[in-house]
Amino acid sequence: MTGPESFQGVLSPVVTPFNEDLTPNGRRLADQCRWMLGQNCGLAVFGTNSEANSLSVDEKIELLDVLVDAGIDPLRMMPGTGACALPDAVRLTAHAVSKSCGGVLMLPPFYYKNVSDEGLFRAFAEVIERVGDTRLKLYLYHIPPVAQVPITLGLIERLLKAYPDTVAGIKDSGGDFDNTGAMIESFPGFAVFSGTETHLLMNRRAGGAGCISATANINPGAIAALDANWQADDADAQQEALNAFRDYMQTFPMIPALKRAVAHYAGLKDWARVRPPLVELTDAQSDALIAGLEERGFEMPGLAAG
Amino acid sequence: MTGPESFQGVLSPVVTPFNEDLTPNGRRLADQCRWMLGQNCGLAVFGTNSEANSLSVDEKIELLDVLVDAGIDPLRMMPGTGACALPDAVRLTAHAVSKSCGGVLMLPPFYYKNVSDEGLFRAFAEVIERVGDTRLKLYLYHIPPVAQVPITLGLIERLLKAYPDTVAGIKDSGGDFDNTGAMIESFPGFAVFSGTETHLLMNRRAGGAGCISATANINPGAIAALDANWQADDADAQQEALNAFRDYMQTFPMIPALKRAVAHYAGLKDWARVRPPLVELTDAQSDALIAGLEERGFEMPGLAAG
Repeated sequence: MTGPESFQGVLSPVVTPFNEDLTPNGRRLADQCRWMLGQNCGLAVFGTNSEANSLSVDEKIELLDVLVDAGIDPLRMMPGTGACALPDAVRLTAHAVSKSCGGVLMLPPFYYKNVSDEGLFRAFAEVIERVGDTRLKLYLYHIPPVAQVPITLGLIERLLKAYPDTVAGIKDSGGDFDNTGAMIESFPGFAVFSGTETHLLMNRRAGGAGCISATANINPGAIAALDANWQADDADAQQEALNAFRDYMQTFPMIPALKRAVAHYAGLKDWARVRPPLVELTDAQSDALIAGLEERGFEMPGLAAG
Repeated sequence: MTGPESFQGVLSPVVTPFNEDLTPNGRRLADQCRWMLGQNCGLAVFGTNSEANSLSVDEKIELLDVLVDAGIDPLRMMPGTGACALPDAVRLTAHAVSKSCGGVLMLPPFYYKNVSDEGLFRAFAEVIERVGDTRLKLYLYHIPPVAQVPITLGLIERLLKAYPDTVAGIKDSGGDFDNTGAMIESFPGFAVFSGTETHLLMNRRAGGAGCISATANINPGAIAALDANWQADDADAQQEALNAFRDYMQTFPMIPALKRAVAHYAGLKDWARVRPPLVELTDAQSDALIAGLEERGFEMPGLAAG
């Protein structure tokens, strides 16, 4: 199932810049995506860290068009297209396929809790059937701490059996590597991404596909370097350095902190803006964040101020 | 704050009928709404039991137009208009106001968990400011078991202070009457609805506004009768009868069971259909449900087969 066209390596759920009126700034997002690609980092735009569920379907379609028109390679893009409402997921997924995106990352419908695997199977199956395009490569998105609707091994098995040429992989943001390992072991050829770079080395050693990680928004180069050299002698030391950096970032609210860091290193203060219900860092938090980054000698080399 | 225009009494989060292709059937929904009104039950369309978050904004706008065009009194309607994405909530709320709906019932943005009251305040405030219409009457929707994002007393206090003429009330589906009672006591004139009829008598005795209840989809007459007569001698006996009926219904998955009951008593089997991720009752569950309803002498008098 994995082949030359499958995603591998490190992807970032790219944070979304907002203008003063809270509309998304597509041109600035394209700049960020271009920088990411230059760091060997793929583009999981419209993820949790992108505030994608705070955007309407129309806004996401328009942003995707802006990115493609700006020359961002759609084969390196895995936009999030899951939604609570079937027509929304179908519309956005079909649009991503029509733009030749390499894949899509699909949340389950996440309003109702304690739903059955049968119901979730039907939800994914309806989207696949209605999109009805053999080019669709679907990556499932398991993020129980946020969506509160898990994707079980049994559900993956059913979906792979029904749609072997479409269901290509999963992002496991459950935080439990035992579960990630079970996915890798149970489904050969199924591309299993860890949802954090702290599991990257374990993921690769177990035969996984890499990671899709929040921190890759600001630290893509170092994460991609470990991914490229996971069999090197110093891999464990590299992993420890990544873990220490992530531990530091996790002392702040992650999404506002990522955007604040981009704002600082790009010299564009508007980058710090978030949509409600998220809230920007306080001035004190911002100062502490940047001071800690500087202490660590942190850089975002080549980040475009545009 | 409550006045002649405020909602009072019993409302139903009206279940949404679907055609075979899973599109909503507006004409049939209008029939159901007309029946509800005839049972002295108001219309909290687009609620949790309506599978509203499984519908796109376009679908909800179209349905609302069908209802109003069919002559359903918009002043008796309190459509759900909350959404994860700000533009979606603004668009649907503005449309409900433009159609003269008596109020709207607004979920908080529910994707991100553990968000701050500051973030939720901004989310509601942005919707209110962007709709920018003094006709807007906003009822907050507290349903932590599903949305997983609570509306605290502190948040209500801030919203009431900032928007005293707009923030009109709340539906408390938290299941804890101590919390409901605290809302009633803390905010005089604020219309507090219980999210279940099992709290109706307690709600009214404490000075609350009534209830908005799933079971009112099929049992509106009996619930409205207790509401109209909550000071009568037999009120406790009526409440016990309602509780027994609700206990019975809760032995089944609620939304599929409500729709199956409507399908049976309307003689329209299509009514049982749900959108994924929900799943219809099995044949065995359906048979058991209807047998139990018949044993209880249950009826839906005057339900139109149309």
